[in-house]
Amino acid sequence: MKETTIYVLERPQLRDPVFIEGLPGIGLVGKLAADHLIQELEAVKFAELYSPHFMHQVLIKKGSIVELMKNEFYYWKNPKENGRDIIIITGDQQVPPTDSPGHYEVVGKILDFVEEFGVREIITMGGYQVPELQGEPRVLAAVTHEELVDHYRKKLEGCEVDVIWREDEGGAIVGAAGLLLGLGKLRSMYGISLLGESLGYIVDAKAAKSVISAVTKMIGIELDMSALDERAKETEEILQKVQEMQRAMLEQQLPPSHEEEDRGYL
Amino acid sequence: MKETTIYVLERPQLRDPVFIEGLPGIGLVGKLAADHLIQELEAVKFAELYSPHFMHQVLIKKGSIVELMKNEFYYWKNPKENGRDIIIITGDQQVPPTDSPGHYEVVGKILDFVEEFGVREIITMGGYQVPELQGEPRVLAAVTHEELVDHYRKKLEGCEVDVIWREDEGGAIVGAAGLLLGLGKLRSMYGISLLGESLGYIVDAKAAKSVISAVTKMIGIELDMSALDERAKETEEILQKVQEMQRAMLEQQLPPSHEEEDRGYL
Amino acid sequence: MKETTIYVLERPQLRDPVFIEGLPGIGLVGKLAADHLIQELEAVKFAELYSPHFMHQVLIKKGSIVELMKNEFYYWKNPKENGRDIIIITGDQQVPPTDSPGHYEVVGKILDFVEEFGVREIITMGGYQVPELQGEPRVLAAVTHEELVDHYRKKLEGCEVDVIWREDEGGAIVGAAGLLLGLGKLRSMYGISLLGESLGYIVDAKAAKSVISAVTKMIGIELDMSALDERAKETEEILQKVQEMQRAMLEQQLPPSHEEEDRGYL
Amino acid sequence: MKETTIYVLERPQLRDPVFIEGLPGIGLVGKLAADHLIQELEAVKFAELYSPHFMHQVLIKKGSIVELMKNEFYYWKNPKENGRDIIIITGDQQVPPTDSPGHYEVVGKILDFVEEFGVREIITMGGYQVPELQGEPRVLAAVTHEELVDHYRKKLEGCEVDVIWREDEGGAIVGAAGLLLGLGKLRSMYGISLLGESLGYIVDAKAAKSVISAVTKMIGIELDMSALDERAKETEEILQKVQEMQRAMLEQQLPPSHEEEDRGYL
Repeated sequence: MKETTIYVLERPQLRDPVFIEGLPGIGLVGKLAADHLIQELEAVKFAELYSPHFMHQVLIKKGSIVELMKNEFYYWKNPKENGRDIIIITGDQQVPPTDSPGHYEVVGKILDFVEEFGVREIITMGGYQVPELQGEPRVLAAVTHEELVDHYRKKLEGCEVDVIWREDEGGAIVGAAGLLLGLGKLRSMYGISLLGESLGYIVDAKAAKSVISAVTKMIGIELDMSALDERAKETEEILQKVQEMQRAMLEQQLPPSHEEEDRGYL
Repeated sequence: MKETTIYVLERPQLRDPVFIEGLPGIGLVGKLAADHLIQELEAVKFAELYSPHFMHQVLIKKGSIVELMKNEFYYWKNPKENGRDIIIITGDQQVPPTDSPGHYEVVGKILDFVEEFGVREIITMGGYQVPELQGEPRVLAAVTHEELVDHYRKKLEGCEVDVIWREDEGGAIVGAAGLLLGLGKLRSMYGISLLGESLGYIVDAKAAKSVISAVTKMIGIELDMSALDERAKETEEILQKVQEMQRAMLEQQLPPSHEEEDRGYL
Repeated sequence: MKETTIYVLERPQLRDPVFIEGLPGIGLVGKLAADHLIQELEAVKFAELYSPHFMHQVLIKKGSIVELMKNEFYYWKNPKENGRDIIIITGDQQVPPTDSPGHYEVVGKILDFVEEFGVREIITMGGYQVPELQGEPRVLAAVTHEELVDHYRKKLEGCEVDVIWREDEGGAIVGAAGLLLGLGKLRSMYGISLLGESLGYIVDAKAAKSVISAVTKMIGIELDMSALDERAKETEEILQKVQEMQRAMLEQQLPPSHEEEDRGYL
Repeated sequence: MKETTIYVLERPQLRDPVFIEGLPGIGLVGKLAADHLIQELEAVKFAELYSPHFMHQVLIKKGSIVELMKNEFYYWKNPKENGRDIIIITGDQQVPPTDSPGHYEVVGKILDFVEEFGVREIITMGGYQVPELQGEPRVLAAVTHEELVDHYRKKLEGCEVDVIWREDEGGAIVGAAGLLLGLGKLRSMYGISLLGESLGYIVDAKAAKSVISAVTKMIGIELDMSALDERAKETEEILQKVQEMQRAMLEQQLPPSHEEEDRGYL
């Protein structure tokens, strides 16, 4: 495999779909939010994206089944008359931070693909790291075009969480949450990034909740949040097990080696 | 050389060949197992794979002959009527862990090549690292498709070593042992990974023995194991010499330099 | 996006344009100088360059608008009869130092582009790091061709700052300031690099002033310098805020993680 | 520039030329030897190789002239009737060790090029690092084909320095000195690597002398060695100056920054 490749399982007809991204990042905020949306909306998987820029490994899933690292596209058909459909992307990982060209390639392929379904508007979800939290995590909004600020402000009116708009310059949105907007803009797409405040180093269900509040308010749907906390707890437990395992190994304090390639860890 | 390239020495006719991988990895388990299979079966080398993603060096072999880093394909013709033939790959190294796209390229080329000989089933061998061992190393099994679990469980019945199947999610198989299955699955190939428990930082003949037990049980052949220990001991001695050399050099504690390129060490 | 791409906003007719580069580098000297030239000359932006070799992020600009990392081309029409026009490039960043091929690609695209407008002469601006400064920062000159030394010496006669020409071999000019000249030379372009002495670790308005003195002397224009100090101060304040933020985060002393991709920091 | 490119200054007719490589590496042994051969034979430069895999910088040469990082090809016409001509390559640097594909690309291009002049035999020169030296540096020989060992042994008979042939397996030749032989072998070229023992961290004129003794013995020419020591001393002084400079800078103990790109150091 030389290039990022998308395997299409189904080609749904979608009505003016909004594209929502939630890939792993700070505090897993985006991914938690996307998983929750997918589950509560009972969205349907219709495509898988593989990339030589992802880690060269397979994950061992329940029942000892291996699966290549991937991102997944889901669609949801809006039952409301004239309602807009939704495409959601989530997945196992993003391209590692050392490989910028890989990021641009993957995001370019994602945009190529969703364009085929008529996507023009993009919502990206994620966390943004703050040194400390005061109260409920707020949500930082950033948009592709100046003329959209009012449009989105209005859509977010009455949202349960505080949405912040930055007055002064500064900061960056790293990874797919940023690139989808930046590269989308070059193809006449537009959109908004909604980033929940997070301390960043945990599985942050609170930040994900804030982000979901903002997103659902914006697209006019309502979701039950009760499953989110449980999902976050499960994710945290899995991560903790992995970390304990790694710590146990590291305590043996042995030097890394080129030879240790197919490191399968339980 | 801009791309991974395979030099074919011979084009054997093979009957529904099983493809077995054993490249260097944790504890050199996969490589030891592959070398043993090749030697005991008197398998015949029929192709060499070179890649610009391998280390930019030649190895100095016995008698001061240089050889480019490579992987090698061997075949074995099953003397049993209606028996399946075997293709084995082993080699000097895998692509370094920092170069994911290189891994995907090499594994893609390997799959392209064995497909030409009609391969549909893949067995990958390796080690998987555990913090401590209890008794003989067990073998972790992981397969490409859920519907294959029973098939392989049956094939492994009566195996001398414990084979573990994971119930819950977690873990990864890094490198060729994982990617061959993951990328093979995308081309309608199927297979199993058999990974011997290993502390990981030694030349682990015990883990290799466990893996060979499982593999030979599965493909229905019997092998003499006596040569394996000796081979492991030799490999360990070579590695030790290299490490002593490196330690001696490191004790001089001098900074690395861009200039020190053609580092030929004895 | 697989390749460095230039989006052209306007195709001006230019008279024998001189091409001036000032991208971020040591002490931000080149960028400060370029920004000052652009503002004082009221130069007009006519093209933007994007590259998959830039950081995989968007910047959050004033009013919460995201913008992809980019370089920008400006032109200035010389009001003097028979005066030469100017093209200036500046931008958010250069390709990271770990990606040499990316640097060569971006600089090659820049040269392809300015060649379309008839550019033959290149002036690159930057800082060069010295362990200590004595008096006003001097400017190091380096040129593409031996036969140009006298030509440029004459042009720089009467310049307010000391211009140094190196007698003996040694040193390097890293990044676009060097590559534009080196790769330009291979296409029969010619030019000079003017590098202000800098301690390197600050926003160095003094060094930028020295460089601007030399450049304006050379191309025969005069500029008000008063805005430069203010601009430098602003830039320094922004950088300081970013650094405080980073320090605050680092004090939490937590390990980096592959998962922390879309790190949006305020 | 997207690919390694060779600029040809002249296309000499050469008689069965031997190709000799001496690029920077351990102790600068290969480069010192090549420079000495070029100067004493008064070899003529006929081509330059540039690569996006070299450092993204220009060197500042005597008189403040910039030059892109490059490798250079020289030829020497053997005045003896029926004598074989020589092509020598040397240069500023090799591809950095982190970029294996770059190494393979550059070495592939070098072989493509010298093949056009009828090269079939390759001699690579370099150092190989030993923890300590006993007496004059010996020279390690390694060849492409087993059947060549006797041929080269005979050619090296009567050589002033000890030439070692390794009995047992082990070690590697990293970089161009190794790859030229390894990749050349795949195109039916053949040759030998001659590596002088070196402590590795100095400009090692002694090791270079040993290598030159072996090479000149082999190709049947005689060279005055007196200039070699002086050249080595000069090189050492330049390197020392650079290192002092770097140390002075490092003592300021400031963090590296993505912004510090066009670092021009004196």
